[in-house]
Amino acid sequence: MSVSTASTTTPITRDEIFAAHEGGKLTVESTMPLDTKRALSIAYTPGVAQVSREIAEDPSKHATHTWASRLVVVVSDGTAVLGLGDIGAAASLPVMEGKSALFREFGGLNSIPLVLDTTDVDEIVETLVRLRPSFGAVNLEDIAAPRCFELEEKVIEALDCPVMHDDQHGTAVVVLAALTNAAKLTGRRFEDMRVVIAGAGSAGIAIAEILTARGIGDVIITDSKGVIHRDRDDLNHVKARYAAKTNRNHVLGGIADALEGADAFIGVSSSKVAEEDLARMNDDAIIFALSNPDPEVMPDVAARHAAVVATGRSDFPNQINNVLAFPGIFRGALDAGARRITSEMKLAAAEAIAELADDKLSSDYIVPSPLDPRVGPAVAAAVAAASGQ
Amino acid sequence: MSVSTASTTTPITRDEIFAAHEGGKLTVESTMPLDTKRALSIAYTPGVAQVSREIAEDPSKHATHTWASRLVVVVSDGTAVLGLGDIGAAASLPVMEGKSALFREFGGLNSIPLVLDTTDVDEIVETLVRLRPSFGAVNLEDIAAPRCFELEEKVIEALDCPVMHDDQHGTAVVVLAALTNAAKLTGRRFEDMRVVIAGAGSAGIAIAEILTARGIGDVIITDSKGVIHRDRDDLNHVKARYAAKTNRNHVLGGIADALEGADAFIGVSSSKVAEEDLARMNDDAIIFALSNPDPEVMPDVAARHAAVVATGRSDFPNQINNVLAFPGIFRGALDAGARRITSEMKLAAAEAIAELADDKLSSDYIVPSPLDPRVGPAVAAAVAAASGQ
Repeated sequence: MSVSTASTTTPITRDEIFAAHEGGKLTVESTMPLDTKRALSIAYTPGVAQVSREIAEDPSKHATHTWASRLVVVVSDGTAVLGLGDIGAAASLPVMEGKSALFREFGGLNSIPLVLDTTDVDEIVETLVRLRPSFGAVNLEDIAAPRCFELEEKVIEALDCPVMHDDQHGTAVVVLAALTNAAKLTGRRFEDMRVVIAGAGSAGIAIAEILTARGIGDVIITDSKGVIHRDRDDLNHVKARYAAKTNRNHVLGGIADALEGADAFIGVSSSKVAEEDLARMNDDAIIFALSNPDPEVMPDVAARHAAVVATGRSDFPNQINNVLAFPGIFRGALDAGARRITSEMKLAAAEAIAELADDKLSSDYIVPSPLDPRVGPAVAAAVAAASGQ
Repeated sequence: MSVSTASTTTPITRDEIFAAHEGGKLTVESTMPLDTKRALSIAYTPGVAQVSREIAEDPSKHATHTWASRLVVVVSDGTAVLGLGDIGAAASLPVMEGKSALFREFGGLNSIPLVLDTTDVDEIVETLVRLRPSFGAVNLEDIAAPRCFELEEKVIEALDCPVMHDDQHGTAVVVLAALTNAAKLTGRRFEDMRVVIAGAGSAGIAIAEILTARGIGDVIITDSKGVIHRDRDDLNHVKARYAAKTNRNHVLGGIADALEGADAFIGVSSSKVAEEDLARMNDDAIIFALSNPDPEVMPDVAARHAAVVATGRSDFPNQINNVLAFPGIFRGALDAGARRITSEMKLAAAEAIAELADDKLSSDYIVPSPLDPRVGPAVAAAVAAASGQ
């Protein structure tokens, strides 16, 4: 990883953070200077009228002669923001601005944040439907589970454009990429593996979904009440759906029971896991402790029981960072003119990310750096190719 | 006016216009490069969490540490676009992108277009209320009359931020500025003047409103059925309101009757006015034929009956162009932290624009050029000072 030591050793201060956020982190610019009469006549009246008239006659020109078709809106209601929880739409905005900035930096896409002063699923869907001619794709962000599942489904159904809740699928794609390489390093085949996912929120469920789609032998999900299995009567409908699709040996009990003989642990729960429980895993285990900023277990402890360790943090090796996935996924979908982000496109994204680490693969390098400039274009190309457009 | 001949003599081609519009006219950029781990840690996780947490604790930091409080959304339903009419939201987007680009160029403000696939006033208001934490001001644009009046009122009532329908008030402000200087040139006092406004749409009504507020002696509005007076029973409620406030001598009949002995004609009707009717005006009359691209009367004809002539076109002297007003009005309102754009602020904007033409005042120069770099800052300063904040 090509990270200079200086950048990690000088502590970042509150003053530095707040100075960088003053006035916000985004700027909208004109693609052409408007400082001559001629430019005004082209970009505004009378020239623009010709473009509007032709779009009215041929709606396909909306896609080619406005910015909308390649504009990603980052949409949040502020109910599950980073580790902060339900802080509301206004307070979530700095995160969404950051996300839009990442779309520019790593996907070469225009993106704007839209934060919504409602948490009602139907109202959010309705708002996006009304705004439909304004954008080309929707990145749902930091929306609490289980509402996020219903919301994503309804937005996908209502709109004819790429829609993805990144906390679910961005995370899942990068986890799958990392797990692909961790399995390779430890000599495992996916179909033989048992993977324990601690946490049944947006990330946990989406990870279960993508691992199942990719043919992992068995997946066990745990929530705050223990192992999710089909006899539990306290599950929301999403957990119940996954109770039927996972835990094929009908393991009961808690995280300790789940980890007995497991090959991989994936923590997305914000709660700690005890070292003695991790000790129950198979030899050469894989531990991804992804809660941020406090991992389920610190990497030095995890390393006593695992051959490969990853976290969500930038100050340890193997950072599982969504930015490896979402800019390229949206870029690829938009490049291909895809109307949906399909399971195939997500699997292709994971494979592309995994392949980029191949050249230097080691237990400390199972995914490329978020700053690796090859990532965005490679993911975009793989996603576009998998879109079937 | 400092316009080079070259820029107006080479015709603008369709190819040139469409090339400039390909992919849209706006780009969103990050205010800081995100190409180091340190930058990512400041602008995104973990640094951004500190900003979000503090906004949750102290909502006033939303105004200082996000882009929202100085972001103007340009909102349209596409029902009254330029001379094209009701072409719909999608086809209106190039115009709204142009408007956002003008906010950047002449107001130094961030602006994004939001075009809405609904023409229902309450749905538009509701959408903006839900999006409230995302922006700092609303420029309503190209919304058909009389719905635009109700919509503007309701949006102003629902939101605690500057809101303005530019087709109404931007136009009215620049007309007042031009009329101020035209009156000065022809030796007239406002209180002695009779002004005929042809057209009772968004611009006509707002011009009547600002001229009345500024103390013009008498205003007569005409619509397609003739002079608006208080005995007509075919008026919508907005026209009826102005029937009571204008036409103090109860003139009946058509445009010819209205122009008999009038001092100024202001055309915002898209319909022609006959030369023999203009001949009925007082000596040294003032004629603003503002319909675009086809003025109510061509300037050479108008000049036979008037001392001062203005149009909406950039290829004649005295262009009445909204861009002289709206960037500075919003900039001034936002600079001052104003929650409303008041009548006082609009009058101050008109005065500032008029004063900028003072140094070279002539019948061919009653308003500054839209490209005059003094305009935006001068209008902003005047509006901020008049805001009472």
